Amino acid sequence: MPSTSTKTPPTNRFVEQNKTRLLDELKEFLRIPSVSTLPEHKRDVQRAAEFVGNALRKSGMENVEVIQTERHPLVYADWLHAPGKPTVLCYGHYDVQPADPLELWLTPPFEPTVRDGNLYARGSADDKGQMYMHIKAVEALRAVNGTLPLNLKFLIEGEEEIGGVSVAKYVEENAMKLKADVALVSDTNMYAPGLPTLNVGLRGLVYMEVEATGPARDLHSGSYGGAAPNAVFGLIELLAKAKNSDGQIQIPGIYDDIVPPTAEERVSWASLPFSEAEFLKTEVGSTELTGEQKYSVFERTWARPTFEVHGIGGGFTGTGSKTVIPAKAVAKISIRLVPKQIPSKVIAAFHEFVRQNTPKGIQIEVRVLGSGPGLMVDTGHQAIQVAAKAFSDIFNKPTVFTRSGGSIPIVGDFATHLGIPTILMGFGLPDDGLHSPNEKYNIDNYYKGIMTIAHFFEQYGNEDAG
Amino acid sequence: MPSTSTKTPPTNRFVEQNKTRLLDELKEFLRIPSVSTLPEHKRDVQRAAEFVGNALRKSGMENVEVIQTERHPLVYADWLHAPGKPTVLCYGHYDVQPADPLELWLTPPFEPTVRDGNLYARGSADDKGQMYMHIKAVEALRAVNGTLPLNLKFLIEGEEEIGGVSVAKYVEENAMKLKADVALVSDTNMYAPGLPTLNVGLRGLVYMEVEATGPARDLHSGSYGGAAPNAVFGLIELLAKAKNSDGQIQIPGIYDDIVPPTAEERVSWASLPFSEAEFLKTEVGSTELTGEQKYSVFERTWARPTFEVHGIGGGFTGTGSKTVIPAKAVAKISIRLVPKQIPSKVIAAFHEFVRQNTPKGIQIEVRVLGSGPGLMVDTGHQAIQVAAKAFSDIFNKPTVFTRSGGSIPIVGDFATHLGIPTILMGFGLPDDGLHSPNEKYNIDNYYKGIMTIAHFFEQYGNEDAG
Repeated sequence: MPSTSTKTPPTNRFVEQNKTRLLDELKEFLRIPSVSTLPEHKRDVQRAAEFVGNALRKSGMENVEVIQTERHPLVYADWLHAPGKPTVLCYGHYDVQPADPLELWLTPPFEPTVRDGNLYARGSADDKGQMYMHIKAVEALRAVNGTLPLNLKFLIEGEEEIGGVSVAKYVEENAMKLKADVALVSDTNMYAPGLPTLNVGLRGLVYMEVEATGPARDLHSGSYGGAAPNAVFGLIELLAKAKNSDGQIQIPGIYDDIVPPTAEERVSWASLPFSEAEFLKTEVGSTELTGEQKYSVFERTWARPTFEVHGIGGGFTGTGSKTVIPAKAVAKISIRLVPKQIPSKVIAAFHEFVRQNTPKGIQIEVRVLGSGPGLMVDTGHQAIQVAAKAFSDIFNKPTVFTRSGGSIPIVGDFATHLGIPTILMGFGLPDDGLHSPNEKYNIDNYYKGIMTIAHFFEQYGNEDAG
Repeated sequence: MPSTSTKTPPTNRFVEQNKTRLLDELKEFLRIPSVSTLPEHKRDVQRAAEFVGNALRKSGMENVEVIQTERHPLVYADWLHAPGKPTVLCYGHYDVQPADPLELWLTPPFEPTVRDGNLYARGSADDKGQMYMHIKAVEALRAVNGTLPLNLKFLIEGEEEIGGVSVAKYVEENAMKLKADVALVSDTNMYAPGLPTLNVGLRGLVYMEVEATGPARDLHSGSYGGAAPNAVFGLIELLAKAKNSDGQIQIPGIYDDIVPPTAEERVSWASLPFSEAEFLKTEVGSTELTGEQKYSVFERTWARPTFEVHGIGGGFTGTGSKTVIPAKAVAKISIRLVPKQIPSKVIAAFHEFVRQNTPKGIQIEVRVLGSGPGLMVDTGHQAIQVAAKAFSDIFNKPTVFTRSGGSIPIVGDFATHLGIPTILMGFGLPDDGLHSPNEKYNIDNYYKGIMTIAHFFEQYGNEDAG
């Protein structure tokens, strides 16, 4: 994608002139602790939905609905007064990850704080700060032109961090209402600061809870140690077998359906500014990288499945010592999938792995908490090409195509039920600390993101008309 | 040990006539939540010490002291007016294990409740109910005879469940004050209901906390999964290697110093009423027993070392799903030792095991929380022989000699610093649920325990004089 210079879009000036207000509004949004997984934040999640609805209304979007679901509300809005122009479906999520461990935050997670050009808060990058740019791009275009250059629909959800059940159902059941030419999602990273990046590949995910039961009750390890099964050790034994010391997953068939990256992708990835030593030091912060050594870090994190244990608990973990043989233990695990892997097949394979490896005297129960396939986007699609050019225009650098190791299940729903591709135009940075303490969003990227999206809307509307 | 009939001791009648009061007093003692490991119960632990001091004073014991230590108080008392008679040092502990998980208790852990001839409460068997019998035996003898048949010293501690640091120090520093012919401890089980049992072997214990560190902070598993070390998985990988699927511990040299049970012991153990199927069903409550199949359950639980994980925690374990690669994880583990194994050597071997097996990118820190060796008691000692006979007299059955899989470090301290053997005369039952929800103590054993101890004091005082 060659970089081309254009006349500075007038929406850029609008953003420049409204910087303080645009930041203050985002801060107000970030103060709402809309943690979707924690029942005690249910009302905050509702409040965040209403905030989004009001912001859409103020931006000039129409038919705003806050749609109640079985869990957290969806927010819909549209503006459909550009006949003959394409329609973009803007998607984002207003829910956030839990903030724990709280003690590691330098400033409170729900009190947005500016430091060194960044805005620190849970959800600042993932995804409140990014989805809010779409709304502000609408506002900018209407302020500058009095109208919009194309048709827009918004669908914003509050369950992205917990599996997105309601939005998936809604997309399936409302395909006509949501019909568009392309979807736009800003929930990914730029590959590096200042480097416009479109993500064209996503990993899928199977998220499960695995519970082990040993003895009927906690037992004294003096009296029973040596003869009674231990639920914690049983779970440890089982999970340790899921991956060998070279990082290879030991679940049978897990690598069957994998399509390796194309030669073109490998060349492109090799050209990205990347230092393994720097990645280890500044991003991972450990002594050594892990995983399958025969694959590059890009391939390992973008194009290979993973097995991770996200959390484990069981037995006595308080202060001091207690000599129990625990009766119960539970772990949260996930398997990341790459394009062409089928979630149901992977779930079945994991069940089979559990069946084959459950230690003696241990009962294992597996609960699937969510799943979605990996995906590739066609880089030849017109909207992707226009988006890449708009991105280049604002950042004044050629746009690169990368993949992401994370999962955005909605992209699969859009493909399946609406038959449309998704532009993954993200403005996050690799060190934003998504899902971690001290999550932040680069403030300059927030402003440039609004400019880029407004510019993309304008160019896509014009291009299609021309 | 042949069963011999004797005239019913008058102390039996005293117990029979005071049953209600003796039970009410124990209930009062059990209502104090003296959980030594939890800082929030520090004052309750102090209250329990004072309760013991008062009970000793009321029983006629003299020179009662509640001795403050760095953590929880010791209680000392003596009665030394039987010149020429032997001296018995009575030991017990008034501290208890934490009661969690609370939701599994049928009645509150600190509201003692009678059901089916048992008294349900945390500490009822371990060890408040048992140590209190010693005091009541003194009271019974003085009520019946106006005096005591031998010299007695009491040393009761409040840190048994957390490693017994203060009592160990006190015994070492006060050997002259505590000098006795034999120690008496009631903190073990009878092999079966109605079967008088002396424990002559104890396992030792090394209790450790193992902490794993992976990345510098929790990471998003989408972005970093496949390349970043995971502290929970690293800890799982390490600990799973400590024992193979046949229950054999893989710590180098762990089996080096083990002395197998004598042929005589094996014959005796084989004669005990034991059904593996019944043990599995009613005590363990799982589908299968585990551990080294080539050894009997007795040998596995009494005469073989163990490796157990008592608890593990790390990453996200709340409701729902969170896709982190955790930075930290911690486990509580122990290794039970058999006689002749040296704790310091086992600790060094575990460090070496950790050094050899720490996964890539993971840092492991090991903290030793407590340790003590295993022990054997000489069954030929006169006091042991008298105790066995007294036990037989009251229960009207020959006394059996068994071992215990648990640890009573104080027995080692008595051997080392006072040069005396310890009689482990316990009245608990195998299904008492020590350290578990719904701990109970058989009320009939409580009464018969008081009778047995009083009878032992009388017989040991007479025997020695005769």
